[in-house]
Amino acid sequence: MELLDVQQVQEVAEKIKKQFQAIDSVEEISIIEAVGRVLAHDMVSKEDVPGFHRSTVDGYAVKARNTYGSTESMPTFFHITGSVEMGKDVNQTIQEGQAMYVPTGGMLPEGADAVVMIEDVEVVGDLLNVFEQVAPRENVIFKGEDVYDGEVVLKKGHRLRPQDLGGLAAIGVTKVPVYTKLKVGLLSTGDEIVPPETEELLPGQIRDINGISIAAAVQALGGQIIYGGIVKDQFDQYLSKSQELFQQVDFLILSGGSSMGTKDYTSQVMNQLGSPGVFVHGISIKPGKPTIIANCNGKPVMGLPGHPVSAMVLFELFGRQIMNQLHHVNENPFAKQLRARISRNIASQVGRTDYVRVQLEIRDHELWANPVFGKSGLITNLVKSDGMIEISQYKEGIIAGEWVNVILFS
Amino acid sequence: MELLDVQQVQEVAEKIKKQFQAIDSVEEISIIEAVGRVLAHDMVSKEDVPGFHRSTVDGYAVKARNTYGSTESMPTFFHITGSVEMGKDVNQTIQEGQAMYVPTGGMLPEGADAVVMIEDVEVVGDLLNVFEQVAPRENVIFKGEDVYDGEVVLKKGHRLRPQDLGGLAAIGVTKVPVYTKLKVGLLSTGDEIVPPETEELLPGQIRDINGISIAAAVQALGGQIIYGGIVKDQFDQYLSKSQELFQQVDFLILSGGSSMGTKDYTSQVMNQLGSPGVFVHGISIKPGKPTIIANCNGKPVMGLPGHPVSAMVLFELFGRQIMNQLHHVNENPFAKQLRARISRNIASQVGRTDYVRVQLEIRDHELWANPVFGKSGLITNLVKSDGMIEISQYKEGIIAGEWVNVILFS
Repeated sequence: MELLDVQQVQEVAEKIKKQFQAIDSVEEISIIEAVGRVLAHDMVSKEDVPGFHRSTVDGYAVKARNTYGSTESMPTFFHITGSVEMGKDVNQTIQEGQAMYVPTGGMLPEGADAVVMIEDVEVVGDLLNVFEQVAPRENVIFKGEDVYDGEVVLKKGHRLRPQDLGGLAAIGVTKVPVYTKLKVGLLSTGDEIVPPETEELLPGQIRDINGISIAAAVQALGGQIIYGGIVKDQFDQYLSKSQELFQQVDFLILSGGSSMGTKDYTSQVMNQLGSPGVFVHGISIKPGKPTIIANCNGKPVMGLPGHPVSAMVLFELFGRQIMNQLHHVNENPFAKQLRARISRNIASQVGRTDYVRVQLEIRDHELWANPVFGKSGLITNLVKSDGMIEISQYKEGIIAGEWVNVILFS
Repeated sequence: MELLDVQQVQEVAEKIKKQFQAIDSVEEISIIEAVGRVLAHDMVSKEDVPGFHRSTVDGYAVKARNTYGSTESMPTFFHITGSVEMGKDVNQTIQEGQAMYVPTGGMLPEGADAVVMIEDVEVVGDLLNVFEQVAPRENVIFKGEDVYDGEVVLKKGHRLRPQDLGGLAAIGVTKVPVYTKLKVGLLSTGDEIVPPETEELLPGQIRDINGISIAAAVQALGGQIIYGGIVKDQFDQYLSKSQELFQQVDFLILSGGSSMGTKDYTSQVMNQLGSPGVFVHGISIKPGKPTIIANCNGKPVMGLPGHPVSAMVLFELFGRQIMNQLHHVNENPFAKQLRARISRNIASQVGRTDYVRVQLEIRDHELWANPVFGKSGLITNLVKSDGMIEISQYKEGIIAGEWVNVILFS
């Protein structure tokens, strides 16, 4: 038998980094539909936000120095000269000893540099008694304090969250340049694989699980799936269907039958799609060892194991990396990780990185990760899991009670 | 001035729990478009998965007891009677001393109860030398071992993830009953608020940030936004526009001007929309104190502060709770939280729950949360943050180095 020339997880990540260039295909879309999309340019503000000095409280605009020394027993007196209307310009100037009413969000009149909160004053006709001193800038957001003219608000490669769209709205940007959705091709192979909608299975048949779960994972990452269906374990059919799909996509995923024959087919197919071809022939990982990755004329092609759990784990690790890399995405590495204590000893093998599915539980005010054991072909193993933990290639295992990083499933 | 009758965060959560019933409007959709949607029924398998005993390796199917005692130096001999084809039924039975080749995922022939891995055998013509003993069930997934006929695979109220769709595909379910998308109305109020697409702001004007960021947050949670636009601080217009929107939605959000006058309008409007009306008149929280929540004939109505940061924090805390509750969603409380050490002392006030925006950073192999300070009107404060930490009402603050829970922004 042919032995796989397996590589370590970290090596594979480094190689992927070197193999693929980002794709710079850009479109402009409305911010209303931009959640989850990736910014294609730095976004620079063309104005100050706010565009005027703005009160953060309901109160009276004054010159701060006129309030110095004010206390409950020794108030300072001001003359009220009017009140500011929301959303309107103010054409009065505050002079020494004068005050104007300003609602929260209202514009500060010229001459004023602070606002005394309404809780700290007493109004007697046109007269204002102030019981607390304020410092200059107190209770005011100054012009440009949120965003200044010329400031980079968001960087290229940022995946847009709801609040980021708010930030864009604030600077008057309602259309954003984003990378066009990655087209990801997905082809399932295996004589035993039948479409999920097959009602009655014949003996030996299995429904195409990866065609659904990997497609959904691609979509959740913002990709567009082009599903090539299921091909039999016949080299010619496998190759021609792969070539057809390869032409249409930015990234091709082959969800392989994991029997030996099919594995050989997959690397042969990849090498015919383009050069330099296969550069990862197996990974020192559990589950997912027989994973193959190729660079076919600059385009990534990934051969995932047929087992649904292996396929999902490997997609989360490297499919995700490839998709992010093609779009310059600088993913926040913490966004999907948390710390928990492992509830059981788990043995592992030095020289191999293990990923163990876990279910999370709060016990004694601490977060515990309970391993979900089961053979790697079990899809319920994934359905029951909240995430997975990594046991490094340098460890012989982990001890119950040890703190571990949990990578959450999306 | 009118003092707010503020309530504690926990109290508010409890009250919301009691006030609103879930909405049981259901539709059937394809699993291909079901990521993020919420299951409306328990999903029960009508068959065993796999439907047959299945090998998890490439190897030889045997009776396990025939291998007992096999070692490298003392192999056991078997007679090879054929090989199993993928996806096909097997019409041979394994007798004592017999073996059949089975590829990974292939069907186990009758009479066999284990598979010897190909690495542990040597083939000499029709003769098989086995160098390792196997136990019964070794390297086999038995019929129904993944899912048994009648098993509940996923529960009502579960938000579907990619791997869950794989689980459904495995049991032959390609259409799922999900709750219809929640219709969430959003109305912005304030004389100073203008549409985000306004190119040149007049003095005193501010673009409608919440109309974008809260809408995006609703959509990210699977809701459908019905945007009512911007109304001025005039009671009649505010009321009639609110009534119109209220009729069309399952949940109404009023993003209020936060000046005192507007706040009063909001609770008056809510009380006219239906009874019993407002039950939360302010929350002992920072930011976001002037938040108002009403039950109008069973329908939730929430008045968010106009400040974008306050609005977002309050939506994440209570808008999210309301949306989940309307769909029976049993959210995994850990899915958006992680542990980090706070990098600075932060003072807080006993009797009030504070939420502080933080940026995450790895330092000395540990995760640190750096507070993002800034006045609550600053949208960049949110754009720069990865999440927020909670300082409980019982604490006077937190000390640099302390471990805290970080609630990640989506």
